[in-house]
Amino acid sequence: MHQKNIMKALVYHGVTKKSWEEKPKPAILQSTDAIVRITKTTICGTDLHIMKGDVPEVEDGRILGHEGIGVIEETGASVTAFKKGDKVLISCITSCGKCDYCKRGMYSHCENGGWILGHLIDGTQAEYVRIPFAENSLYHIPEGSDEEALVMLSDILPTGFECGVLNGKIQPGSSVAIVGSGPIGLAALLTAQFYTPAQIIMIDPDDNRLEVATKFGATHIINNSKEDAVEKIKALTNKKGVDTAIEAVGVAATFELCEDIIAAGGVIANIGVHGKSATLHLEKLWAHNITITTRLVDTVTTPMLLKTVQSKKLDAKKLITHHFKLSDIMNAYETFGHAAKEKALKVILSNE
Amino acid sequence: MHQKNIMKALVYHGVTKKSWEEKPKPAILQSTDAIVRITKTTICGTDLHIMKGDVPEVEDGRILGHEGIGVIEETGASVTAFKKGDKVLISCITSCGKCDYCKRGMYSHCENGGWILGHLIDGTQAEYVRIPFAENSLYHIPEGSDEEALVMLSDILPTGFECGVLNGKIQPGSSVAIVGSGPIGLAALLTAQFYTPAQIIMIDPDDNRLEVATKFGATHIINNSKEDAVEKIKALTNKKGVDTAIEAVGVAATFELCEDIIAAGGVIANIGVHGKSATLHLEKLWAHNITITTRLVDTVTTPMLLKTVQSKKLDAKKLITHHFKLSDIMNAYETFGHAAKEKALKVILSNE
Amino acid sequence: MHQKNIMKALVYHGVTKKSWEEKPKPAILQSTDAIVRITKTTICGTDLHIMKGDVPEVEDGRILGHEGIGVIEETGASVTAFKKGDKVLISCITSCGKCDYCKRGMYSHCENGGWILGHLIDGTQAEYVRIPFAENSLYHIPEGSDEEALVMLSDILPTGFECGVLNGKIQPGSSVAIVGSGPIGLAALLTAQFYTPAQIIMIDPDDNRLEVATKFGATHIINNSKEDAVEKIKALTNKKGVDTAIEAVGVAATFELCEDIIAAGGVIANIGVHGKSATLHLEKLWAHNITITTRLVDTVTTPMLLKTVQSKKLDAKKLITHHFKLSDIMNAYETFGHAAKEKALKVILSNE
Amino acid sequence: MHQKNIMKALVYHGVTKKSWEEKPKPAILQSTDAIVRITKTTICGTDLHIMKGDVPEVEDGRILGHEGIGVIEETGASVTAFKKGDKVLISCITSCGKCDYCKRGMYSHCENGGWILGHLIDGTQAEYVRIPFAENSLYHIPEGSDEEALVMLSDILPTGFECGVLNGKIQPGSSVAIVGSGPIGLAALLTAQFYTPAQIIMIDPDDNRLEVATKFGATHIINNSKEDAVEKIKALTNKKGVDTAIEAVGVAATFELCEDIIAAGGVIANIGVHGKSATLHLEKLWAHNITITTRLVDTVTTPMLLKTVQSKKLDAKKLITHHFKLSDIMNAYETFGHAAKEKALKVILSNE
Repeated sequence: MHQKNIMKALVYHGVTKKSWEEKPKPAILQSTDAIVRITKTTICGTDLHIMKGDVPEVEDGRILGHEGIGVIEETGASVTAFKKGDKVLISCITSCGKCDYCKRGMYSHCENGGWILGHLIDGTQAEYVRIPFAENSLYHIPEGSDEEALVMLSDILPTGFECGVLNGKIQPGSSVAIVGSGPIGLAALLTAQFYTPAQIIMIDPDDNRLEVATKFGATHIINNSKEDAVEKIKALTNKKGVDTAIEAVGVAATFELCEDIIAAGGVIANIGVHGKSATLHLEKLWAHNITITTRLVDTVTTPMLLKTVQSKKLDAKKLITHHFKLSDIMNAYETFGHAAKEKALKVILSNE
Repeated sequence: MHQKNIMKALVYHGVTKKSWEEKPKPAILQSTDAIVRITKTTICGTDLHIMKGDVPEVEDGRILGHEGIGVIEETGASVTAFKKGDKVLISCITSCGKCDYCKRGMYSHCENGGWILGHLIDGTQAEYVRIPFAENSLYHIPEGSDEEALVMLSDILPTGFECGVLNGKIQPGSSVAIVGSGPIGLAALLTAQFYTPAQIIMIDPDDNRLEVATKFGATHIINNSKEDAVEKIKALTNKKGVDTAIEAVGVAATFELCEDIIAAGGVIANIGVHGKSATLHLEKLWAHNITITTRLVDTVTTPMLLKTVQSKKLDAKKLITHHFKLSDIMNAYETFGHAAKEKALKVILSNE
Repeated sequence: MHQKNIMKALVYHGVTKKSWEEKPKPAILQSTDAIVRITKTTICGTDLHIMKGDVPEVEDGRILGHEGIGVIEETGASVTAFKKGDKVLISCITSCGKCDYCKRGMYSHCENGGWILGHLIDGTQAEYVRIPFAENSLYHIPEGSDEEALVMLSDILPTGFECGVLNGKIQPGSSVAIVGSGPIGLAALLTAQFYTPAQIIMIDPDDNRLEVATKFGATHIINNSKEDAVEKIKALTNKKGVDTAIEAVGVAATFELCEDIIAAGGVIANIGVHGKSATLHLEKLWAHNITITTRLVDTVTTPMLLKTVQSKKLDAKKLITHHFKLSDIMNAYETFGHAAKEKALKVILSNE
Repeated sequence: MHQKNIMKALVYHGVTKKSWEEKPKPAILQSTDAIVRITKTTICGTDLHIMKGDVPEVEDGRILGHEGIGVIEETGASVTAFKKGDKVLISCITSCGKCDYCKRGMYSHCENGGWILGHLIDGTQAEYVRIPFAENSLYHIPEGSDEEALVMLSDILPTGFECGVLNGKIQPGSSVAIVGSGPIGLAALLTAQFYTPAQIIMIDPDDNRLEVATKFGATHIINNSKEDAVEKIKALTNKKGVDTAIEAVGVAATFELCEDIIAAGGVIANIGVHGKSATLHLEKLWAHNITITTRLVDTVTTPMLLKTVQSKKLDAKKLITHHFKLSDIMNAYETFGHAAKEKALKVILSNE
């Protein structure tokens, strides 16, 4: 049992160092804040990047995590949409709701928020978290919801859907290739099916992931460590290429593969987090009427996704492969950090 | 006076070689063809590229030119929309109207046409030209039109409008930068004003061209041989960059400049014809919610542009700086080939 | 066995009168025509309207029918996309591909075509039919297709999809009501699922039709002869009404029901063929940010629908309840004319 | 000089009764409120409707007015975007920024706001006003702005633009008819020009208003008390009708006129406030591929309109015909109430 105002949390202590340790319980700082008691959270590929030092603005002492669900513990004076005891979904993106970007639906670029949880302020891999601008950054969880499934709505499903599927303009009968069959590529695969494309071709060098993709609804799979993806896609698409190519890895080679497989008039939708530039073959593409999009998830589609989960049109739970207690998070990181070996997609950490 | 079935034409004879010479007058080959007597034509930057050998598929003996207006001389058996004597505008893009691409409005990728005039078949820098799929590739010229102005609708205005302005999603009150103030950049400038942006910033290293841009409606000009375009644009846009950046040059440096000046949520619309790849800075752009588009002009907006010219909303004639007789085309090439020195934008070649 | 140039056809002879009789086999009249030997056709609700005299422009002696598939028998001189022996799908809408409306994708308003088959020219309920503008009005049938299913692509599926689903802007997670569970309402129901709405509520006074709707994917059904549709929809939608209301009957009462159940910000998409005006309650709707659309099917989505059928995303065959030989068409009319009693949706007439 | 906490305001006292009288100065009620000292306000046609009793929910004692600019006097505890002394534009629509409707950009249907100023809570025709949800309902006025012009951005210009121009999908080269040349029709006329239509035809029975319309940019005018508007529009549009018809009156006859003049494929955009139903001629329109829209202004385009005013693309001031002191508002109502006789469009009431 904890002392009052003390909680346990997963704390970053510089490259490769983290610990599950005691930290002060967060308190309301602004009238628009809410304190949420975390009931379920998870680990994101981005958390692994932080641990490797790829996100240098994360400071020693920072509590990680930007996903999860929980229960309202306390609200700031101006919060009326939530009250103590309400079950809530936490968005990975904090939105003030009032800046120019928020008004345009670009919450990712919110001048007062954006991706700050577990990044610039303390995050959700803890017993409690402070959520700024609670009314625009939390969502009520409907009665009778499958709460584990909803953890997938904090980040991974809106990311796959907004950056990949919506930006990719997928349409009934169209052809789609998703390069990368990790959790984020699979999230795109699940939500791509909202629009009933004729073909969804998953490309990955890992046979296990491709097998998962087939179970999740891929119509074709290509192991690009063994097969020539460009040739195979041309064969599947009457030599024209795909209408939508979704990049879900984050390196130059996979982006450039998208350039090679996109049909005239098609869209390359980038989801991957890139650390380096890629070569854009304008000498070929300038005349091909293509569109390339990039996007940091805005989570503007969270209300829509909630409806699809509730109406059982989206089985978000499929992405969950492992369960841990929140207090066992150090082991969960170990498992998630060896995702291929462990056949891990998303892990659920429970604090109940 | 010519012999029957003989005409004069500008003929390509391999890199740097051309002549104004006699050629057989074209004849109907397909029931969907029309023969047009050219009354006015012009020279395109692309014709200069052909002369330099940049378009190797153009064969020795080819008549150049893909722009112009004229009078119907003869029609194939299935042509009902045009008859001998009709005044017509020739589109630079030949559209069959029946392939998948044409049905989707992507005439540039027509499986039976596309850009073929003065490229894969004989073109418009001649006294007569054969136009395949006449009903989908010619437009009636309304009574009382300014015919010189309409020559600008064959290629340059739809190119600036479709590839730059429409793809660039210009909106009332938005900020636009156009990199390159040559004829094509100026065509984008003229048609960008259809959507009433607050700022149109022209960037070019030639002061004369920037002066023209100011006369054509640019709100700001930047000589990027003397000034730091990125700094100046940040200063003009509250440090955010522009909502739309239009690339109208066709080299990597100008495309990469667009990457540096685009605001989060913005669109880079490429018009330039590129011979080499560019570096795409995904390490920065992946999270900026931007869109990049490429396009070969489809000329689907020709009917719309005709209405704007006729209602005097678009003063297409502004782009014309020089006039020649068609028979004087060798001199016209000389002038147009030294555009900066001659302060040339578009030349009109008359055959009347 | 027929004499040369004689065929059998279903001929209209004025209100309530029709017969299966000998007619001259059609011949090529224009170079853009094709003659198609019908292999399968069907009867449309519109054919029943013609028989009742509701479509007075149909003349005595007209062969009815505007749906079907067949085999190319002969082509006009300028037709290159089809050749004798090709299997083809006939669109109910004839498109010249070259008028302003066709270029805008509004084939229904084609200045040289539109709905003319079995209306202003002889139709498909015959052994042979002449199809004007064959290249824009016929579609190749891919190898291995289920040909009966494709008969549903001539009219009913594009009608439900274009007029109801696309115009209705159905989105993942949204709520949809379809008023009328006859063949056209069911076509909208089938294609609405392309966009994964959370709710599809079918409304009809016939329990059998509602039972079919449930099998076809309706999430809720309302028998509006027994229940208060407005109240029930309010209960299903948090009192807000539906995001999309599709009118699939064609009388004022059902259109006005749509006005009563539409949510603020929603779309009423009319499919029904109306003979009388309706009351538009602007005193309520002026401030509700709603959209109302009307449309005669354009069949611009036929290529998209073909892909959904081929990739088994759309089971078009579900709409077929009865089979007859083409020569037994008088009986087929009898059955289709008593659709409720016969539990008939679409009938297939085979000529093989 | 007033006593502390007392101010003057225009107060509604039941049908036809109003007075300029003392009222308590408003105070902050919620942490999201701001108190604004009004510097300029105006009178809306809706205020006249209230005086006639057409808006029965307005209670005796209510301060009228929903437009104006002013200076922040005091802010609630959670307001950070504005501080005392800031110059602000007041939107006629109060937006909480956090409900489902606000997140979808439908501020008009805000569950905690919407049109409440001078309607359900005290309004702007006073020395001070309380603005709920200040951060989403006020806009900073840029330095050097023409403040009178900005009063036109509170309601009339976003109304004409959003309900008429944006909903009407006006495009370069298209044809537009605006039925009603009062202030709201003229606001649509001014902002329609953002999209460079070829024709803007104004229809009104008052020659003076039509003369104003000509000055404001109408390309054609029709006095429908003297001329047959339908015939004249057919003559102007090649018998096709207009692409966009904007209803800016609010009675059945003008809405039905829009039905008569709309081209196939066109849009009827309703702006008018209707008290009665209209007849929708579905027997004609069902097959004409038209769209009808209704909308209560959302004021989502206020930031865009601010940019067009600042960049001098929109001369909002043109709508102002009369000036009064705020204390002289009873006379201003008199003038505005006889708009035709007084040739009044918008009046400015100054409190400086």
